[in-house]
Amino acid sequence: MTALTEIREFLATTFPQSSGIVEEVGNRAATVRMPVGFNELRPGGTVSGPVMMAAADLALYVAILGAIGIVPLTVTTNLNINFLRKPAADRDIMAVCRLLKIGKTLAVGEVSLYSEGDPDRVAHAVGTYSIPKPGTTPGDARLR
Amino acid sequence: MTALTEIREFLATTFPQSSGIVEEVGNRAATVRMPVGFNELRPGGTVSGPVMMAAADLALYVAILGAIGIVPLTVTTNLNINFLRKPAADRDIMAVCRLLKIGKTLAVGEVSLYSEGDPDRVAHAVGTYSIPKPGTTPGDARLR
Amino acid sequence: MTALTEIREFLATTFPQSSGIVEEVGNRAATVRMPVGFNELRPGGTVSGPVMMAAADLALYVAILGAIGIVPLTVTTNLNINFLRKPAADRDIMAVCRLLKIGKTLAVGEVSLYSEGDPDRVAHAVGTYSIPKPGTTPGDARLR
Amino acid sequence: MTALTEIREFLATTFPQSSGIVEEVGNRAATVRMPVGFNELRPGGTVSGPVMMAAADLALYVAILGAIGIVPLTVTTNLNINFLRKPAADRDIMAVCRLLKIGKTLAVGEVSLYSEGDPDRVAHAVGTYSIPKPGTTPGDARLR
Repeated sequence: MTALTEIREFLATTFPQSSGIVEEVGNRAATVRMPVGFNELRPGGTVSGPVMMAAADLALYVAILGAIGIVPLTVTTNLNINFLRKPAADRDIMAVCRLLKIGKTLAVGEVSLYSEGDPDRVAHAVGTYSIPKPGTTPGDARLR
Repeated sequence: MTALTEIREFLATTFPQSSGIVEEVGNRAATVRMPVGFNELRPGGTVSGPVMMAAADLALYVAILGAIGIVPLTVTTNLNINFLRKPAADRDIMAVCRLLKIGKTLAVGEVSLYSEGDPDRVAHAVGTYSIPKPGTTPGDARLR
Repeated sequence: MTALTEIREFLATTFPQSSGIVEEVGNRAATVRMPVGFNELRPGGTVSGPVMMAAADLALYVAILGAIGIVPLTVTTNLNINFLRKPAADRDIMAVCRLLKIGKTLAVGEVSLYSEGDPDRVAHAVGTYSIPKPGTTPGDARLR
Repeated sequence: MTALTEIREFLATTFPQSSGIVEEVGNRAATVRMPVGFNELRPGGTVSGPVMMAAADLALYVAILGAIGIVPLTVTTNLNINFLRKPAADRDIMAVCRLLKIGKTLAVGEVSLYSEGDPDRVAHAVGTYSIPKPGTTPGDARLR
């Protein structure tokens, strides 16, 4: 089973409510597609900010799982996002993550977000995930 | 019609897909409730990061509309969020925003996020919105 | 010896090149003064951004040392700063830090920066420090 | 006169207290060297955080001036920096900026920071500058 298949199955099982689709993962990187429909739009015919934040967060999570294996309790500790251009209302959002660091307890990555087919970034994010030590229980995960 | 009612009606009309509820607005501040149910949870019995990001973004938007009036094309340019503690899975997220600055073109605010009824912050965000000049059309809004 | 005296002596010994002065520390908070002279100014008669970043970083460091004791290898992992208003060229910068979280491995705080005597913030920062485990050597400190 | 020479002369005249050296500018990018000596170090034999923040801020400023010309009142509105690895105490910091957006009123760029000669980033920053309208006076610059 490839990493891509394994991560897709993990997400389908544990995040069934997420609409993001993993397109690629590996080499400390990942690409995620966030489908854009009525629920993702906001006034002015553009994609809402939280949809892009969710895409960035998911791309980071997938890139990290691709690098360290399935560690479900890996959690975001910080996300910073800059919105650069108005996304197209009729195109999916593509989030392309590249990891900048994988440490023992923290991983950091940057994410470029695009309207599919347009080479200009619509947003750019940088985020940090905390990687739990082996044996961490859910109750501990946000306490680090 | 109070500002609270006016903003609620504006959001119901233009963001019908948003599940956030405006609880308070005024004095350069706002409080927003994000209901937590199955769709808002993630593994480990906790609220997903994007739900908290959406709550922070909405609280900022509402506080700014409360201060400058209904300017729909006001858009987020930057959001930074730190996740501090594990939110309760069975409580709504309350996002309390306080504006730090309302300039002619940029507004900045900070948001403390709580699990309802618990005084310890689960997350803290700071965000910037760009306020369009009068006469700005939707196509211009992200170009600033 | 009070915490204030102890931290001042620690800084004088280990950061002799820092010009910041610790004014208060305790209760998960700290206030630091950054003297403003020719070296701290930039065109337009205002304080340079890096001086305010240094003040914010130092206020965070001092607040954390006040809470956990003198742990020299505690290092910044993330700092986010928003510049809000033009600082006065003839007043010191006062940085007031309040900690939002002190975990086992991460501490997070926010910092409001003022021109001395003016109640309007000139900048606002949020930062994260990584707290090393007992026994960490300098070579490990940035590897987390 | 090349852009590089012009920007160096502008910085030498208006920021004589800055120790950063512009190495390259153009194509929406810039590289800045921050010399590392006693004043730039901190306990553990590493470069202090504020030195890296100053390098990131200067690289952004130079890249923007290279793209829009010498506009002195262009000011930082937001800077986010992640510290990734321990920099070498005996090497200069090299800050490599690439602009992500140049709008009419806001410019955004990302900066990778290195210890000279080492290909692994020691830090990564993203920042926003506000570009004043023609005719803006110093007193207005931070009011946007």
